[in-house]
Amino acid sequence: MPAPQRILVINPNSNDAVTRGLAAALAPLARPGGPAIDCRTLAEGPFGIESQADVERVALPLRDLVLREQAAATVIACYSDPGLHACREATDRPVLGIAECGVLTALARADRFGVIAISRRSIPRHQRALRGMGVIGRCAGERALEMSVAETASGGDTLARMIAVGRELRDRDGAGAIVMGCAGMAAHRGPLEAELGLPVIDPTQAAVAMALGMVAVG
Amino acid sequence: MPAPQRILVINPNSNDAVTRGLAAALAPLARPGGPAIDCRTLAEGPFGIESQADVERVALPLRDLVLREQAAATVIACYSDPGLHACREATDRPVLGIAECGVLTALARADRFGVIAISRRSIPRHQRALRGMGVIGRCAGERALEMSVAETASGGDTLARMIAVGRELRDRDGAGAIVMGCAGMAAHRGPLEAELGLPVIDPTQAAVAMALGMVAVG
Amino acid sequence: MPAPQRILVINPNSNDAVTRGLAAALAPLARPGGPAIDCRTLAEGPFGIESQADVERVALPLRDLVLREQAAATVIACYSDPGLHACREATDRPVLGIAECGVLTALARADRFGVIAISRRSIPRHQRALRGMGVIGRCAGERALEMSVAETASGGDTLARMIAVGRELRDRDGAGAIVMGCAGMAAHRGPLEAELGLPVIDPTQAAVAMALGMVAVG
Amino acid sequence: MPAPQRILVINPNSNDAVTRGLAAALAPLARPGGPAIDCRTLAEGPFGIESQADVERVALPLRDLVLREQAAATVIACYSDPGLHACREATDRPVLGIAECGVLTALARADRFGVIAISRRSIPRHQRALRGMGVIGRCAGERALEMSVAETASGGDTLARMIAVGRELRDRDGAGAIVMGCAGMAAHRGPLEAELGLPVIDPTQAAVAMALGMVAVG
Amino acid sequence: MPAPQRILVINPNSNDAVTRGLAAALAPLARPGGPAIDCRTLAEGPFGIESQADVERVALPLRDLVLREQAAATVIACYSDPGLHACREATDRPVLGIAECGVLTALARADRFGVIAISRRSIPRHQRALRGMGVIGRCAGERALEMSVAETASGGDTLARMIAVGRELRDRDGAGAIVMGCAGMAAHRGPLEAELGLPVIDPTQAAVAMALGMVAVG
Amino acid sequence: MPAPQRILVINPNSNDAVTRGLAAALAPLARPGGPAIDCRTLAEGPFGIESQADVERVALPLRDLVLREQAAATVIACYSDPGLHACREATDRPVLGIAECGVLTALARADRFGVIAISRRSIPRHQRALRGMGVIGRCAGERALEMSVAETASGGDTLARMIAVGRELRDRDGAGAIVMGCAGMAAHRGPLEAELGLPVIDPTQAAVAMALGMVAVG
Repeated sequence: MPAPQRILVINPNSNDAVTRGLAAALAPLARPGGPAIDCRTLAEGPFGIESQADVERVALPLRDLVLREQAAATVIACYSDPGLHACREATDRPVLGIAECGVLTALARADRFGVIAISRRSIPRHQRALRGMGVIGRCAGERALEMSVAETASGGDTLARMIAVGRELRDRDGAGAIVMGCAGMAAHRGPLEAELGLPVIDPTQAAVAMALGMVAVG
Repeated sequence: MPAPQRILVINPNSNDAVTRGLAAALAPLARPGGPAIDCRTLAEGPFGIESQADVERVALPLRDLVLREQAAATVIACYSDPGLHACREATDRPVLGIAECGVLTALARADRFGVIAISRRSIPRHQRALRGMGVIGRCAGERALEMSVAETASGGDTLARMIAVGRELRDRDGAGAIVMGCAGMAAHRGPLEAELGLPVIDPTQAAVAMALGMVAVG
Repeated sequence: MPAPQRILVINPNSNDAVTRGLAAALAPLARPGGPAIDCRTLAEGPFGIESQADVERVALPLRDLVLREQAAATVIACYSDPGLHACREATDRPVLGIAECGVLTALARADRFGVIAISRRSIPRHQRALRGMGVIGRCAGERALEMSVAETASGGDTLARMIAVGRELRDRDGAGAIVMGCAGMAAHRGPLEAELGLPVIDPTQAAVAMALGMVAVG
Repeated sequence: MPAPQRILVINPNSNDAVTRGLAAALAPLARPGGPAIDCRTLAEGPFGIESQADVERVALPLRDLVLREQAAATVIACYSDPGLHACREATDRPVLGIAECGVLTALARADRFGVIAISRRSIPRHQRALRGMGVIGRCAGERALEMSVAETASGGDTLARMIAVGRELRDRDGAGAIVMGCAGMAAHRGPLEAELGLPVIDPTQAAVAMALGMVAVG
Repeated sequence: MPAPQRILVINPNSNDAVTRGLAAALAPLARPGGPAIDCRTLAEGPFGIESQADVERVALPLRDLVLREQAAATVIACYSDPGLHACREATDRPVLGIAECGVLTALARADRFGVIAISRRSIPRHQRALRGMGVIGRCAGERALEMSVAETASGGDTLARMIAVGRELRDRDGAGAIVMGCAGMAAHRGPLEAELGLPVIDPTQAAVAMALGMVAVG
Repeated sequence: MPAPQRILVINPNSNDAVTRGLAAALAPLARPGGPAIDCRTLAEGPFGIESQADVERVALPLRDLVLREQAAATVIACYSDPGLHACREATDRPVLGIAECGVLTALARADRFGVIAISRRSIPRHQRALRGMGVIGRCAGERALEMSVAETASGGDTLARMIAVGRELRDRDGAGAIVMGCAGMAAHRGPLEAELGLPVIDPTQAAVAMALGMVAVG
């Protein structure tokens, strides 16, 4: 009997609370008989990924983990998609980045999407990635919460701030769907969607859904 | 107790054999406890959708079916994405087109993708759609089998022809992933992937995987 | 002696007042000895085309009319260009959409153009079309009157509102020419142009001018 | 009584035979009661415009002529659109370039167009112009006759060569319409269209048709 | 012994004060043993280049000067890049336009750049050039000082105005580097950079640096 | 007296022969009194950078070196531009990648450029980078030598192979300039340029020239 298939979801920062949040956000996607959704903390990761240096720091550890684990598919659960291309090079199995999958899923819901970023300084990095993906023409705008990752994880004000930013993306920029530009915002997805009246995409959920499909069809 | 959720997959042509093929292709995606994957033939559809007139003919019947069925999500299982925008207008729930989702899924697997079309005359329609999606910059090329839908469904030569076309997309055009540009080719996905050594995307499977994710997270 | 050539201009909604308005707007383009400009109401059309469903509804009736009439050229006089590709498929003779032709004509007058839409909800549809046309890079912006088609037809305030919106397109968005995003605004073209000091394009006039040229040269 | 309106069509080279050819090509567009179509040779022009230096040489003489003539609209009848922006700056009335209008008209006939150039060295200049127009994404390809302007004007082999090049644009590049990339090819338009089975655009005819429309509506 | 190599920097307007300013701005780039940087006033130029007609006026005189001087490389020191393609056609040696080189250099410093223009009316000309260069997707915005060239040259308020405009480009438009859109602003480069905290590019310095490199490697 | 300024050129692989080759290629750019051009081998680098993993491996060591050295400007001398964005984040001084600068310099020489890559597998990585740069529309094509880095460094056949590939880029793809897609090909630049009759860009020379300009003007 073959071992059951498994989707490896890697939190590239070393904050276990984020990993637990991912597991909770992904629980609705798991099904009996389907692949396990295995959320892991990258031990070598920094506590948060907030700079390009942090992105580079985790690339090879991620690749090593992908090689070691031999999961049916891997999701890199950080909105900077660190190490994505190095990991892809290391395996023929699917390796998905949540920024890519969040955006691709938004493209299936609306003409143009907006992105809620944590901080303003990550926006040029995201925009460069959207150009690299060749989809920047459908980005209505990207706006930042201007909160630290820690604040967004804990603070009660996060949802209010997300709603305010989401309204600007919808009303000023013309976004028809919203991508949450961080791995740790899933708990706010439903309330934000209800408040804005637009599809709101949690990128990790989007990536795992795509991974489940790829694994299921072999 | 709420009725179990259901994903409606509509074959817009009236060929029940195609619908049965869809059901077989999608069976690996279904999970106990998960949404039902309900494949339907559009009674009003033509026997095959091979022209823009065919595309137009089914748009409103599709929209009517979407409205009537009130599924948790709907997938329009024809590579021309007929009626997609009319159906989206009729509901806030996800309505996915397989051409869009097949391409979006390919974008998560390789830098540039190729499309295998059934016939040459559909290529300008597909290219226009890719431009409308804003992703044409990542299309390495599109090449046609030059077979009728009926031939591709029945003929034993189909796989051989797909392999030949897939090799041209890979070797001449530089495609790193292949999208099968038709709803009825799923049975060839695995063998074609094995032969080409590239990810091959069945667009209906891709769309249903995305729909399952959207429904699961609410 | 051959029957004189004829350009068929179809108003896809069933509002005869709109058709009469088209005829008036096009009268200056007609010349003795030249093709007749034959304005028709599509009997099967809804009273106004305000949704994607309306767009789909008229596609095949338009195609049928094109086939039946065998005009030298056909203009579909609705800014959503309904049925355009289905009609083109049905004949080798020119079939022109007014949205396409209005925009193409604007491109011959200024570096970037702005569009005055009737309602905000049609903007994503128009933007998708501009992307599909591959010319969105020259769209400075699109802004809506936020009036119903009926209001724009009758209301004395329409011109004032168009001037206000046109100024925003010119001064905030940098538009160097304005496309009126509706078939029924031709009466305002001259006054709006005078007020804004920019070329203002009535899309139906633009399309018929192009059709006249195509017919004249054979 | 106002003087009848007039469209000035300027041949920027000093070859009167070309100007006479233009007049012949445009005769079918003229109508009693409509604007006169006044074809002029630019006295200061070189015998042919075959280089960027030739393009620059005629820019200001063209602008001077536009200022002096005060026509209702002006068409610059050279496929390099020399002096176009300088002439536009000199008047609020329409000034149209035939390359721009030929391409814009092709965009109303097919998904992608091909261009038949006279010589290979003009292709980068044309491509730069298409990028500047923002429409290069719809250019299927451009291929050269590799004949001199003089040869194309006189030689009996020109049509055969155009057909060969047009077939390559259609069959290898996927062009759905052809733009003749020169002001002096109009006599071949009909036969080429018949042979290729695709719309073939003479750019001067296209530009004058658009000019007629602009003048007619004021 | 070969004559020492020389880079010809042509000020296409006839204002010698501008030429002297160029020489001062370029002095830091000159090195003993390296090519001479020879700044020249185009005698035939207008006093300032403020229109497309001015641009056209100097194209052939520039080309003649390039041919006559046979410098190792030539820089056309006007932000409209007048005559650039005509000059390139006249020689196989490098001919560089400062607008092109200023923008290209900015692309090596930041994700998106902003341009400070002298006057609003030049913006469409610049935007068309950026589209022609194929790099418009990285232009965050362009904003005008709304001063005459003379005012910018003399006025003490110029720097204050540049800082205000630069802040808008940085804070509203998201520019990460600034290109000064004029040949005569070099004296303000340092102070503006210090004030904005972003790289500020003087386009003539950028072009001469590139020219020095081309000449040095042969 | 201030310490003389210095441009740090880092060879990210640990092959000292490559570093010596860089020093030789850059010697013509150095001038008495100008900044020193200081070529260094990255001790931590692999012997060659041939994969995405190699790219990731050197990113942080490069950043550390940039921080430690505090050069006036830094050039990363590998055509994959490893660590570029991490290094830029670490300093306000210019950090230039040779792929970026090679391409930007080519854009100042011809309408479209071609790239000679070492191996076919690096092409998708390069194409993604060109899309990220927003300049892919000007890439005529990229073709591979299909030699190892070691072979290109030593083999006498390298130039012959480069000429063959360069001719294909010129004649089939329409390239008007050639970028050598590797840090170690500078010795072939001159002969290749002479053979092809097109500008050939060595990307390290291009980057150092831009760096020299940035340092000179402060």
